[in-house]
Amino acid sequence: MKTDDYALLTDLYQLTMAQGYWECDKLNEQACFYMFFRENPFHGGYAVACGMAHLAEILEKLTFTEEDIAYLASLEAPGGGKLFNPGFLDYLLNMKFDVDVMAVREGTVVFPNDPLVRVTGSILQCQLLETALLNCVNFETLVATKAARVCREAGSPVAEFGLRRAQGEAGGIYASRASIVGGCASTSNVLAGRLFNIPVSGTHAHSWVMSFETELEAFRAYARIMPKNCVLLVDTYDITQGLKNAITVGLEMKERGEHLSAIRIDSGDLAWHAKQARYMLDKAGLTDTGIVLSNDLDEYTIKSIRDAGAPVTSWGVGTKLATAYDQPALGGVYKLAAKKTGDGPWEDCLKVSGQSTKLTVPGVLDVRRYYHDSGKIAGDMVFDINTGVQSERIVDPADELRQKNLAGKRFVTLLEPLCIKGKVVLSEEHRDALVAQKRCREQLKTLDESQKRMLNPHSYPVGLEQTLFNRRHDLVSRLLGLND
Amino acid sequence: MKTDDYALLTDLYQLTMAQGYWECDKLNEQACFYMFFRENPFHGGYAVACGMAHLAEILEKLTFTEEDIAYLASLEAPGGGKLFNPGFLDYLLNMKFDVDVMAVREGTVVFPNDPLVRVTGSILQCQLLETALLNCVNFETLVATKAARVCREAGSPVAEFGLRRAQGEAGGIYASRASIVGGCASTSNVLAGRLFNIPVSGTHAHSWVMSFETELEAFRAYARIMPKNCVLLVDTYDITQGLKNAITVGLEMKERGEHLSAIRIDSGDLAWHAKQARYMLDKAGLTDTGIVLSNDLDEYTIKSIRDAGAPVTSWGVGTKLATAYDQPALGGVYKLAAKKTGDGPWEDCLKVSGQSTKLTVPGVLDVRRYYHDSGKIAGDMVFDINTGVQSERIVDPADELRQKNLAGKRFVTLLEPLCIKGKVVLSEEHRDALVAQKRCREQLKTLDESQKRMLNPHSYPVGLEQTLFNRRHDLVSRLLGLND
Repeated sequence: MKTDDYALLTDLYQLTMAQGYWECDKLNEQACFYMFFRENPFHGGYAVACGMAHLAEILEKLTFTEEDIAYLASLEAPGGGKLFNPGFLDYLLNMKFDVDVMAVREGTVVFPNDPLVRVTGSILQCQLLETALLNCVNFETLVATKAARVCREAGSPVAEFGLRRAQGEAGGIYASRASIVGGCASTSNVLAGRLFNIPVSGTHAHSWVMSFETELEAFRAYARIMPKNCVLLVDTYDITQGLKNAITVGLEMKERGEHLSAIRIDSGDLAWHAKQARYMLDKAGLTDTGIVLSNDLDEYTIKSIRDAGAPVTSWGVGTKLATAYDQPALGGVYKLAAKKTGDGPWEDCLKVSGQSTKLTVPGVLDVRRYYHDSGKIAGDMVFDINTGVQSERIVDPADELRQKNLAGKRFVTLLEPLCIKGKVVLSEEHRDALVAQKRCREQLKTLDESQKRMLNPHSYPVGLEQTLFNRRHDLVSRLLGLND
Repeated sequence: MKTDDYALLTDLYQLTMAQGYWECDKLNEQACFYMFFRENPFHGGYAVACGMAHLAEILEKLTFTEEDIAYLASLEAPGGGKLFNPGFLDYLLNMKFDVDVMAVREGTVVFPNDPLVRVTGSILQCQLLETALLNCVNFETLVATKAARVCREAGSPVAEFGLRRAQGEAGGIYASRASIVGGCASTSNVLAGRLFNIPVSGTHAHSWVMSFETELEAFRAYARIMPKNCVLLVDTYDITQGLKNAITVGLEMKERGEHLSAIRIDSGDLAWHAKQARYMLDKAGLTDTGIVLSNDLDEYTIKSIRDAGAPVTSWGVGTKLATAYDQPALGGVYKLAAKKTGDGPWEDCLKVSGQSTKLTVPGVLDVRRYYHDSGKIAGDMVFDINTGVQSERIVDPADELRQKNLAGKRFVTLLEPLCIKGKVVLSEEHRDALVAQKRCREQLKTLDESQKRMLNPHSYPVGLEQTLFNRRHDLVSRLLGLND
């Protein structure tokens, strides 16, 4: 199934609203939306931005085809009649997307309330982009973050192999890419390897062993055909016997001048078996044969295995990484923050809510990241590019009493052009998963250890530039007043 | 991104094992694999099979292209040299898949240890199919099951709208289709609507309201452009005022001979606000205007809202359905159960494990479903089609003491041909999501209410035909003996 029909990869209401903007003569209305999330995933202290290369590809392919329009023309309204006006569908067919998109670079460490993506353009087009944008940035950021957490605890290389339990084929493909961005050394997913030029790896399954009369025969056959990449899975029948058979084959390989790369254990008490395996391998003189562990691993089980002193050379992590099992969705949202008509000035927009944590932020936003002299990050300031930074004090958007003065510190601005007037400008380099992986690794070094703890991490300050905070405060009062 | 390059949608080790089978002259070795799961998802009492239409499509598109082969030829082995033998890659390029696949029909209610799919063919081809097969059947069965649970508690129509938080674009598309199979009335996902001919629905977002000067103006505009499908979202600023504005517009519509279909509430205490809305709508004479609820719903929150007496016309369910949030992966596995060389007899294969619950079942398997005279289901019997049913007693595969005699009861056999010698034979009718939805609805009626409870459901008996159980028992003893 071809899934790159991105114009229809949207919620129906985006199209009915678009028709509304068309019918209400709002084609000249410009909007500014931004995408952000409200809480770090996995109760952690940070997230790793990902999905921007995918977003660039979506923008490059975003056109309504004749088939799309024919399908939309066929839809009936629940109350009878056609759902869409033929004039509107003609407009869609001939429309060229010409939005501007700014986004953080993939692999950037990001935090709640940081704008990750900003889209400006006609409100109709901004709206049509929402669903696909959220779909890719939410999911890929989620998995890149999970990968960063897993890799931090693993210490040694992690191979991602979750495709068989991933949510759909593209779920698997983009999970594999995001895992690499977050720090994984390789993926088992061959298609992801081909599409994204990322390293692939793999060994053999239990079925290989079962297809031979004996395990020893299966191991010997595998060593013969994979002498340079021989990893033997030892738990098809009985781990201790499997280890003995692997050692027999490892010694045979050694005699031939070859090398048994590793054994893999995929069941049982992994820490205990890894120690047993290390002892047996060392005793047999196979000291440079590694130990690969797999079976339902995540950052928590990996930590407990390492805490138990297990000697692990590398890890295979599947389901819990590729589906972000303990939190399978990032709740990133895409909110209207400003609007203007033609060449008029930008006007603030705001969604009010009973909870102050759910208030949006108005304006055409960007984010400055400030640094301590040590190179560690000091705080993020969300500011309006049109009013600029008038105060270097940031205020927590949900708690006026939490403020921080960032004056005098070095800073960088995080949003970079991804698409200008409909033309994607993201370079090949900035779409490269391995470049993003490197950025992620460097970015993680700018966090304090306390901010990377798995549980109860130190919270990193992200605030609104003080005058922006005050402006929002006034606007909320006014809007609630209007509705009294 | 085109994701239907199904030949590479696999784990690398499937390809290195395939090369192994090729190098070890095992091209004539036939294998029988079957796919099953060990535990019902969501602590429930059943699952709804899904993913078979997708599997049929995968089988239709499964060929290695020149680009695939060029990519594989470029891969290096970790120890140096090329990973793949050019002769093997030539073999892949010219290979036609000619496997046989039997599968349960989509929408069938299934249980742990039921074979959902059986694949027979050369071991090389069976292995290459594993990852893509598990990817689609695991995920779609998971979401169809979640949808069935949600719809059961909802009582009134459920619209799925999880695309923006789904795991990748195909995650969204197949989640939408599986949601329909499990019982949802519609999806917001337009592309899924076009691809699978399933109903789409949608209203408007908060941004629609924010793009106008006042909420009342936004509602009036929406009523004007969508007179036959007008659902107004009332919580952009303040729900009570939003309801008042919606009522104003509803009364204006009534005067024009139109009809405000519903109001939607997307935040706050949904049960409380739904009752408030019903009271206000009724008092204004808008008794046939419905109430749509959304905001992070699943079967548990829906039940609690209904238990609170909220008058709900329909529901919108997103993230928690499309990602199966509380259990985002079904742990279905694909295990080698029998093998033979050329025209020889089938030999049993078994993976042994420390836990009896993880033992596989040997043989060329199918499943008989027995019925009580009442039409309710009585028990599933897994049997070997080559030895046939010699006893109508079933034995729990993990507990010899749990047995049930099904003699004399009416039964059906669940596996149906999906692909014969590489040619897909699944009819259009059996690929239709709405046909599967109907089957699911009828199948759910054959379960006892106690088996459909959300928590602690009555466990349904699935067992091995008695002689198959005994055969497996002997084989385990023999295999463990061999490895002592």
